[in-house]
Parts: sequence; structure tokens; C-alpha cells
Amino acid sequence: MRETTSIAIIGTGNVAFHLGNALYENGIVIDQVYGRNTQIASELSKSWDCSVAASLSEIKSDLVLICVSDNAITSIISQLPEGIAIAYTSGSVQLSSIVGRSNIGVIYPMQSFSKNKAVNLFEVPFLIEADSTEFAQDLFNLAWKLSRKVFYTTSEERKKYHLAAVMVNNFTNHLAYQAKNYLDQQDLNWELLLPLLTETVDKILISDPYNAQTGPARRNDQETINTHVEMLDGLPKEMYKLISKSITDTYLPHD
Amino acid sequence: MRETTSIAIIGTGNVAFHLGNALYENGIVIDQVYGRNTQIASELSKSWDCSVAASLSEIKSDLVLICVSDNAITSIISQLPEGIAIAYTSGSVQLSSIVGRSNIGVIYPMQSFSKNKAVNLFEVPFLIEADSTEFAQDLFNLAWKLSRKVFYTTSEERKKYHLAAVMVNNFTNHLAYQAKNYLDQQDLNWELLLPLLTETVDKILISDPYNAQTGPARRNDQETINTHVEMLDGLPKEMYKLISKSITDTYLPHD
Repeated sequence: MRETTSIAIIGTGNVAFHLGNALYENGIVIDQVYGRNTQIASELSKSWDCSVAASLSEIKSDLVLICVSDNAITSIISQLPEGIAIAYTSGSVQLSSIVGRSNIGVIYPMQSFSKNKAVNLFEVPFLIEADSTEFAQDLFNLAWKLSRKVFYTTSEERKKYHLAAVMVNNFTNHLAYQAKNYLDQQDLNWELLLPLLTETVDKILISDPYNAQTGPARRNDQETINTHVEMLDGLPKEMYKLISKSITDTYLPHD
Repeated sequence: MRETTSIAIIGTGNVAFHLGNALYENGIVIDQVYGRNTQIASELSKSWDCSVAASLSEIKSDLVLICVSDNAITSIISQLPEGIAIAYTSGSVQLSSIVGRSNIGVIYPMQSFSKNKAVNLFEVPFLIEADSTEFAQDLFNLAWKLSRKVFYTTSEERKKYHLAAVMVNNFTNHLAYQAKNYLDQQDLNWELLLPLLTETVDKILISDPYNAQTGPARRNDQETINTHVEMLDGLPKEMYKLISKSITDTYLPHD
């Protein structure tokens, strides 16, 4: 790190793809890429104008960015050369769980990446943590080249943000899946719901979701809730009941 | 209806406000407004340049648009003059539940309205139904002046769209509320989640939510799921478990 930084990217998934691209476009030197999928690693090496590392022990860049799934992080770190500076990109892996290493940190972009969709990283929050103030500062400065929303957070805080991110991203997407699946089964047109979905989020962006809440459960309209529950089967039925109960409870007058 | 149409709006809530404004701006004559809240009715009458009806029996427009909550619709209809053309704006009230009336129909805008936020009605689906083909056509033509997404649907179909709308709008908003509430309790910053929420929906708009799904439950990562469940209390805990189970089940290999 410090003055001249060269970076090795470990991983060939969505995070590796988007972070690597953003670093490359911002003039940061990527000199090595490594991935189990050697074909994608080779493709990435071409777009970033760097070499493919044949093994993890060959990595020799100033900083290694580990962009792999949580359960592979520890194993990858154990295979990297001693003393090399390492940052991983996970929301939930605690820094204290990485033992026997120094120069270790986290650079967690709180965004959902997919290869077929560009993301404006400049607005994406990056959560930073490291085992020393100096290394944390280095990672902060690196993230600052990509985004104007960079924050120091502890592992505990990062884990809490990750939990909220799961609700906002994964669960919202699953509700959309369930709604689409239901309409598909009924031979109805999911596309008709898209303006409502857009408006739902636009409203959350400008107001508090507590105040933005509407609908049968908000009004404690048990008749409509029961009708809807009857129209569903299996887990969607249970989800409908439980989320409705949670909404109703949120707005019931408290003693 | 037919050639010269004048409209009476019943209700002073968000639907009345937005539909009335859109009709007025499109040159359709609103000649009466009625609402229990006489002050808001008086304000609306000024912006639409019309009179306030003192009682429902005085309504004499060509078409009455009922923009009130579901449980008030039947009572309002019973107080309107015999023979007058009536359309209500509910997603879930079946046309067959309105007995002893002819010239009755539905014009349901599938959108969530709030007074402090403009909505582009042109993209909003309007679901149309009536007790005669001619009246349905009249309502279709009226909606067509406001939107390019107008559809004839039966009460059954409308009810199903309404159920999907509850999932997409009400439930998504509640997840955002729960995530914000959790972060507020932890003294963390909800604003950091907003880029992720925007991206989540952008992704659904361009791809299938089945394919867009990511996260611990998608990977069947029970360790992260359990950690998150331990971090929550009460109904959010149950919601987290159930939605995660629903996601995991959706992607488990089937026999």
C-alpha cells in the first residue's frame, strides 16, 4: 500500500468483477488475479491487464483483496504468503476470527452486485476495519478512490449492517419472487406490479417507512387479511400471516 | 359519461386527491366533491373549481367516483341517488357484493398514493370492471385519459393483483421499517442501506427475481442465518426465520 500500491484480486465472482473493474478504471494497478475458475480468471486478467497467479502462495502484490464467499476466506488466507497485507470483502466474517495473521483488514462494499448490471460505486457505502490504525487508513484511502461513503466500523457494527442488508435486499427480492410466482400461477401479468414496486422504494427514500406504511394490515383490516391468507398456500401463506401480524402489531395503540 | 362527462368525487384521501388532480389537469370536469372531512373537501373544491355537496343524496354528476376505504363503499352507494353511474376504486371489493344497483363499476389504480408525493399516473395500471360492457368501455376511456396501461379485469383477477400488490408494496415497506428500526436501536445509520434498496429494485426491474436472489438463505448458509436470528428478538426474529426458510426451500434441489 502506501505510495505505490499494486493489488491482487482473489475470486472471480460478482464482487471481484465490480471491485476490480472500479479499481482498474480509477488507475489503481491490479497485477495479479487468482480464481478456482481459471477461465474467468484468465478473462479478468485480460481486462485488467495483469497476470493470473497459478497458486495462492505465488501472490506477491502490496495488497490482496479477497472477494470470495465467507466460508472460503480462512482457507485462502492460510495459503497466502506470510506478512502480505490482506483485506476481505465480507459483511459477516469477524476480524477476530482470523487468527495468526497481521496486516489483515476488511473493505466491505454494502451493495448487491451482478455481472450483467453496472453499479455506481460512488454512492455505495464501504465499511472499513483493520488490525492497525495505519492499515485501516490505507484501506480507507483505497475505498475513498471508489466511493464518497467510506466508514470505519467494528466487526460487530458491520455484522449488524449485514443483517439489515439481508432484510432490505434478499428479503425484498424474495417477496417480489413470491408475488411474481403467485401471479404466474394465476396466469396474471407480473409486469403490472413494477410501477408499484418502484413507487414503494421511491417513497421509502424520501420518507420514513414507519409513516409510509399503508394496506390492510396497517388498517388492521382482518377481513382482507383473512381473504388473502385463504388465497395462498404453503410458506407464502405463513409469510403473509406473520408479516401482516408484525405490521398490525407495529401500529396497534400501545397501553 | 358519453359525450359530456361531469364527475363527482367522493372522499378526501390520497386516492381522491391524486385521481381528482389528474382528471382536472386532463380537462375533465369535476363538478362536485363530497367528504366527511368538510375542510379538506372545501380545499379540494377550490383546486378543482367545483362545489362541495352537502350530502350524498345531492350528488347529480354523470359519474360518481368513490375514493374511500373498502368498508365504507357499500354504505356510501346506498345513499347515492338511484340510477346514477358509480365507480369505486378498491382493489378487493367484488362487484357482485354491490347488490340492487345498476350502472356500477370499478376503476382501480394499482398504485400507492401519498399527498406529499407526485405520481406519474401515465405508467400506473388501471384495472376496469363494470356491470355492462358499455359502462366498462366508458370507464376504460376515462382511465385511458390518465394512463396508457388500462386493462379489463374480473373481480377475481383484481383481488389477486391486490394480494400481489400488498406483498410488493406493504410488505417491502415493512421490511424496510424493520431494518431501520433495528439499526436505530443499535445506533447505526439507516441511510447507508438506501443505495442497496434502490439497487435491489433496479435489479428486479431488469431481471427475474428468481435469478436475482442472493444472500445467506440463497446459499443455504445456516451459520449466518442462525447468527442473524440470534441477533433479533420477537416478530422480526420469526420473520427472519420464515423468509429465510422460504428462500432456502425455493432453491433447494427438488427430488
